[in-house]
Amino acid sequence: MAATPTDAGVASLGEFTFECGQSIPELRVAYETYGEFDGDNTVLICHALTGSQNVARTPDSDADAGQAGQARAWWDDVVGPGKAIDTTAYHVVCANVPGSCYGTSGPASERPADLDVGLDEEPGHDRWGTLYPPVQVEDWTRAQRRLLDHLGVGRLRAVVGGSVGGMNVLEWAKRYPDDVDRVVPVAAAARLDAQCLALDAAARRAIRADPNWRGGNYYGEGRPSPANGLAMARQIGHVMYLSKASMERKFGRRSAGRDSLTREEGDLGLPADPAAAFFPYREVESYLDYQAEGFAERFDANSYLYLTRAMDEYDLAAGYGSDADALAAFEGEALVMSFTGDWHFTVEQASSLATAFRDGGAPVANHVVDSDHGHDAFLVEPEHVGPPLRDFLADGVDGRAVADEGSQPPAREEPDHAPVHSSLFRD
Amino acid sequence: MAATPTDAGVASLGEFTFECGQSIPELRVAYETYGEFDGDNTVLICHALTGSQNVARTPDSDADAGQAGQARAWWDDVVGPGKAIDTTAYHVVCANVPGSCYGTSGPASERPADLDVGLDEEPGHDRWGTLYPPVQVEDWTRAQRRLLDHLGVGRLRAVVGGSVGGMNVLEWAKRYPDDVDRVVPVAAAARLDAQCLALDAAARRAIRADPNWRGGNYYGEGRPSPANGLAMARQIGHVMYLSKASMERKFGRRSAGRDSLTREEGDLGLPADPAAAFFPYREVESYLDYQAEGFAERFDANSYLYLTRAMDEYDLAAGYGSDADALAAFEGEALVMSFTGDWHFTVEQASSLATAFRDGGAPVANHVVDSDHGHDAFLVEPEHVGPPLRDFLADGVDGRAVADEGSQPPAREEPDHAPVHSSLFRD
Repeated sequence: MAATPTDAGVASLGEFTFECGQSIPELRVAYETYGEFDGDNTVLICHALTGSQNVARTPDSDADAGQAGQARAWWDDVVGPGKAIDTTAYHVVCANVPGSCYGTSGPASERPADLDVGLDEEPGHDRWGTLYPPVQVEDWTRAQRRLLDHLGVGRLRAVVGGSVGGMNVLEWAKRYPDDVDRVVPVAAAARLDAQCLALDAAARRAIRADPNWRGGNYYGEGRPSPANGLAMARQIGHVMYLSKASMERKFGRRSAGRDSLTREEGDLGLPADPAAAFFPYREVESYLDYQAEGFAERFDANSYLYLTRAMDEYDLAAGYGSDADALAAFEGEALVMSFTGDWHFTVEQASSLATAFRDGGAPVANHVVDSDHGHDAFLVEPEHVGPPLRDFLADGVDGRAVADEGSQPPAREEPDHAPVHSSLFRD
Repeated sequence: MAATPTDAGVASLGEFTFECGQSIPELRVAYETYGEFDGDNTVLICHALTGSQNVARTPDSDADAGQAGQARAWWDDVVGPGKAIDTTAYHVVCANVPGSCYGTSGPASERPADLDVGLDEEPGHDRWGTLYPPVQVEDWTRAQRRLLDHLGVGRLRAVVGGSVGGMNVLEWAKRYPDDVDRVVPVAAAARLDAQCLALDAAARRAIRADPNWRGGNYYGEGRPSPANGLAMARQIGHVMYLSKASMERKFGRRSAGRDSLTREEGDLGLPADPAAAFFPYREVESYLDYQAEGFAERFDANSYLYLTRAMDEYDLAAGYGSDADALAAFEGEALVMSFTGDWHFTVEQASSLATAFRDGGAPVANHVVDSDHGHDAFLVEPEHVGPPLRDFLADGVDGRAVADEGSQPPAREEPDHAPVHSSLFRD
């Protein structure tokens, strides 16, 4: 059953000064809401790196289902009528973050015509490009607060989000501790580790090295986008979102049964490599190519640069002595959810985060899901994410399905084929 | 103490037909030998992906030490006078593999002038480029056998190698089971898993997407090499060689204290990104950039394509029903060495390999080193690699320092700073 968005649109929120000190004259934020607002039932959902405001299935998302990955109905297994985040009970709000490309102001947005930035009148000069101010998770959070004010929502029942959306959740607890009752960072951490920082940097390098990137000024008529660089960046990210075990189970070393040469020539425009034709084009490569190319068609390369930098830069403890100090003013309850096979945000990081909530004085449950789906688990295992989330929203850390560290769920039977749910990479 | 190579040069081995069926009229193999041959004391060492024939420190490697990474003296902590592979006792042979770029025939080599391949007379047409035949681990092994015949060496005391060099070792046991007494695959596996295949494919894509790659024809006068693509590929590889824990310990999230913008503009020729300047250039990024750029200067991009494809393609069981069947004819002894923090070639893969030797009837020790250095451990932990290797060469699986699975070495004290040894990435 599809949810009916009670409100969807783009809010014009006026001048916005980013944490970096730079301003834009008009921040526009694309958002959707689901369910009726009763004054006390709002759940804000924070999307992941490349997500959008369309968190639940709607007539709009149905229209192009299967084509837009996380751009559409990215958590429809969890959010909707009767689902874990029940839109018949809660007023759900989801907004596209500043710097992204699904309707909220970002590098691909039009730059105000009266803003003199000393650029030549070259093609694409009417877009921000890399002149858009650097964006941080703090800015996302402040923009969401501004949007909620605009919508007439004060205090929030809960803020929920996965991956870097979980960092966005943490920033809510840190920045607006009195504005939210319950927070749920899912598959998240207080900060990225060196390995993830390294891979994100390599991904950005791929975009910048694409000759079509042109310093971020590729929006003009007749200018191709840096699709190759963005696709490469996405492939690196994609591997980070899957576990070694799930990749081995899903692909192994099987050949895709097609010619890599023909395919790559056709779809990527890369020069032919005679020596490559001898070797199989493997399923894992075919899958990653297909997903990455689809992604490169729908996502903006500059946004990818901006949003990964925001993720890399986020540090919960920034401005405080520790994570616990940063969370000390938060007096609500927290559910920290993590997945054993996740190497992007590990269970150890989640455990440390739960400890910080606890040390900061908040009731917290460190709910660890036994899974080998990797980071992607928070999207592809709604059967494990939904119940604790539902019960935590209703009853806090005492919720029936909410487990705390040390009381892991029993090992479960692994189906031959994992059920198909929307994932970080669905296309 | 530096070893004196008793022989070093390039052997011309005549026409060579690769496993793919294609031939080259003259296979040249660059090699070095150390120690005196007594008819029965030869140890063949197989280098890793980007290694060279210069395995031990020599006057030649001293001359440009610190500049050439794995190109020079890449295992000098393990191989040399009095070291684990003692060049005063053994006759050590190491050869650069076909497809590489340290003197052995490969894509960067001159193509015979009389070989008509229908190319235009464009710059660089005198090099093989991607017209060089596809290379496989089997070809490396056959080329080594041919070289040893040329040198007058029949049966080998041992074949030792790490990483894909360990696959090369396995191929010796499979293809020439009667020619070798003892084999030591270190940090290796019978085949790559899907995760590593995916990352290798992304790395190759980075090279092919570099506009300077030009289908592999970049050798001509005035044609820049695809250094950006190769550097990106190397960065992906580099992360695969380190463990999450070692990266976190070594770099954390520290800033390098320099401006990424200035640096990247200067060294990579990438367009400036105003939004990037706001964020720190982190030590982990600086380190990977520095290492990758040094690597891109000394290694050939086409060779990187060729050698990673050989690694990806290798499957010990190919042509047999199983790994054990492939090893059944080998009647020597095997030491399989692996490292707990290695996610490129895991201890589980090593354990499976040891089982295959055992099932094939060979005495085997599955020696697991407790380490969080990742794949790189086989180069940076000579204090753990050396003793079992030394004792295995002397006494086989009964060697004193040789442990078998289940009898892991005791946990050791972690020094504040790891000792500096040559690594996959030293430059």
